[in-house]
Amino acid sequence: MAVNLPPPDPNSLRPVPGVELGIAMAGIRKPDRKDLLLMRLAPGAAVAGVFTQNRFCAAPVILAKKHLKNAVRALLVNTGNANAGTGRDGLKRALDVCASVGELIGCKATEVLPFSTGVIMEPLPVDRIQAGLPSAVSSKASWLDAAEAIMTTDTVPKAFSATVKLSGGMATVTGIAKGAGMIRPDMATMLGFVATDAKVAPKALQSMAKRVADGSFNCVTVDGDTSTNDAFMLVASGTGVEARSEKDRKILEQAVLDVALYLAQAIIRDGEGATKFVTLTVERGRSEAECRKVGYAIAHSPLVKTAFFASDPNLGRILAAIGNAGVKDLDTSKVDLYIDDVRVARSGGRDAQYQEEQGIQAMKKQEFTVRAVLNRGKAAATLWTCDLSFDYVKINAEYRT
Amino acid sequence: MAVNLPPPDPNSLRPVPGVELGIAMAGIRKPDRKDLLLMRLAPGAAVAGVFTQNRFCAAPVILAKKHLKNAVRALLVNTGNANAGTGRDGLKRALDVCASVGELIGCKATEVLPFSTGVIMEPLPVDRIQAGLPSAVSSKASWLDAAEAIMTTDTVPKAFSATVKLSGGMATVTGIAKGAGMIRPDMATMLGFVATDAKVAPKALQSMAKRVADGSFNCVTVDGDTSTNDAFMLVASGTGVEARSEKDRKILEQAVLDVALYLAQAIIRDGEGATKFVTLTVERGRSEAECRKVGYAIAHSPLVKTAFFASDPNLGRILAAIGNAGVKDLDTSKVDLYIDDVRVARSGGRDAQYQEEQGIQAMKKQEFTVRAVLNRGKAAATLWTCDLSFDYVKINAEYRT
Repeated sequence: MAVNLPPPDPNSLRPVPGVELGIAMAGIRKPDRKDLLLMRLAPGAAVAGVFTQNRFCAAPVILAKKHLKNAVRALLVNTGNANAGTGRDGLKRALDVCASVGELIGCKATEVLPFSTGVIMEPLPVDRIQAGLPSAVSSKASWLDAAEAIMTTDTVPKAFSATVKLSGGMATVTGIAKGAGMIRPDMATMLGFVATDAKVAPKALQSMAKRVADGSFNCVTVDGDTSTNDAFMLVASGTGVEARSEKDRKILEQAVLDVALYLAQAIIRDGEGATKFVTLTVERGRSEAECRKVGYAIAHSPLVKTAFFASDPNLGRILAAIGNAGVKDLDTSKVDLYIDDVRVARSGGRDAQYQEEQGIQAMKKQEFTVRAVLNRGKAAATLWTCDLSFDYVKINAEYRT
Repeated sequence: MAVNLPPPDPNSLRPVPGVELGIAMAGIRKPDRKDLLLMRLAPGAAVAGVFTQNRFCAAPVILAKKHLKNAVRALLVNTGNANAGTGRDGLKRALDVCASVGELIGCKATEVLPFSTGVIMEPLPVDRIQAGLPSAVSSKASWLDAAEAIMTTDTVPKAFSATVKLSGGMATVTGIAKGAGMIRPDMATMLGFVATDAKVAPKALQSMAKRVADGSFNCVTVDGDTSTNDAFMLVASGTGVEARSEKDRKILEQAVLDVALYLAQAIIRDGEGATKFVTLTVERGRSEAECRKVGYAIAHSPLVKTAFFASDPNLGRILAAIGNAGVKDLDTSKVDLYIDDVRVARSGGRDAQYQEEQGIQAMKKQEFTVRAVLNRGKAAATLWTCDLSFDYVKINAEYRT
């Protein structure tokens, strides 16, 4: 049950010139579901990416990072198998799949980026993927098809489009993501792909990808786990107008951020067992890093998250999380705390004016904002998270059975 | 439902000469329950303590730290109210209670250490505590009574005794603790008190307290939260034999550690919703700190904990947690993983010999060990934790309602 997340309107999703999509039902883990996505790129397309920081990164992540240095012609995504924790054999299998794509579309194996998500520590079924590739190549798929083809335990496909006016004309930005629970139900979790037809130099695209990831996918969290397969890829096919100037690139980056932020928040809204969508804002800290630290401490506390689930304004749990965030010289007697517009704590203690009924009313909503004001600087940060419900435990205890 | 934690046998709990216990039913939050504990110490007793690192520390913690510099004559513990998040008024109330104790037993307010646990951000009911003090002073309570008087949502009182032979004769060590869930159900959570009749110099006692806390209460965790009221106090009444030599102090410290470790593990066994008691051992790391980091990453992952609950040997979740522990140069291709005696992963991948049924059988038990071997050094660390069950969410979502 996703929180305020309707399925995307197919008409709102704009094709991206220079990016051809194809899907297949390859039966990788289960029959009769879309589980293979091929994205073919126009020659000269630029691709940038941000990958998991987990030391146990999966075979496709290792290869994708490596192949990113070449002229990328295609991205291949499979669900049902993460090809993680599979050692040298896993690398070989991922490369075999890239080679098969290359044969079919006429490029080198090293010009294909592989992505996998699903169960881990099981060998990638190369034969089934190879058998599915011809229909992925010949099919004409939409972005909605593509979003569906990368779903694992997602309940809603996640896709979004934006258009922007650059100095040379209009550009399109469309993206898809899958997040099988913001809390990362298994090792292979978040994948995001955003494409534009605009032309952007590779170096500028890479720094854009990094900033966009920091402002979107890196601002959503449940438990701080980093999966082995996380990747966010930004494609600029270059068949459209060029983002010539700094101003153009800023405009384009904002559109890419809009798309990525929608997708990142969609992952939280479709989080496993989520019943609440919570915005965490930390203000007046000394640095953005410090504000994020406080935000993460709140977002990762199971006690805070169960209180969200219960619509229980248990302020002590939030204050304890703030005090526990690792900001060594934090003067707690200066901290104010708000739930939506209700000031619940002032100067580190309960606000004298605060009535608990106000807090309950604010937290009963499906969406609300928790705002902590540290009163020690000028920096701020915003994160998004969800609650911890019975269904979270149910889904994760029963995931493989 | 505690995991293998029978109530203490009253006959096993040895009185500690030089420490007099008294309890009362003061009706602090609920009527007809033991909620006040007074520990009176013989003149010359030494007291050492380790307190919460949370920046939002409670008023009694602030006072107890301050009063610890004086000759301590009594410790007063109340449940039902944590006196946390209460600002200046909270400090005044805690001091008022200390003064009342002082008047009754003939010492200064500054020679009394206050401890509080329970709901937060509510004013400490000084009048009720004062009304209960005379019966706490006149009653003769056992260590089991004392353990019961500090319980909050604990389902089993926690107490343990040991005796040791020092060069001058026998010494007794008895301790009590309360942990209303290892996951810290509200701000006020873990309190531990261990007393011995041995005579130990204050400075030696303080370093002993620190080492014992590091080897016991700091090795148990669920979610890494640090409450605002945590405290571990070590009392040496000095009415018994003196721990004269370094050897004596080592023998005594081992007994104190035995008692503290029993209590710390009892907190995990009685954890909210706990159905499994899990020992996490990390071996062959470069430093103990690194091993603890990896252990905590496993222990704090909700995904790992729900897999424990489901008896699901979801190795990927454990490997992902290890990869995500923040050990930057960890070579994951060297990591081995065991569940009890079953080697489930070897060199960073699934062990070829491993059959999943073996993992399921090992994890079905109420107690098992997860052992990660990093193969990069000679250090090791052991932590204890529990699973994340439906009842955890239930208890914490309904805590205040």
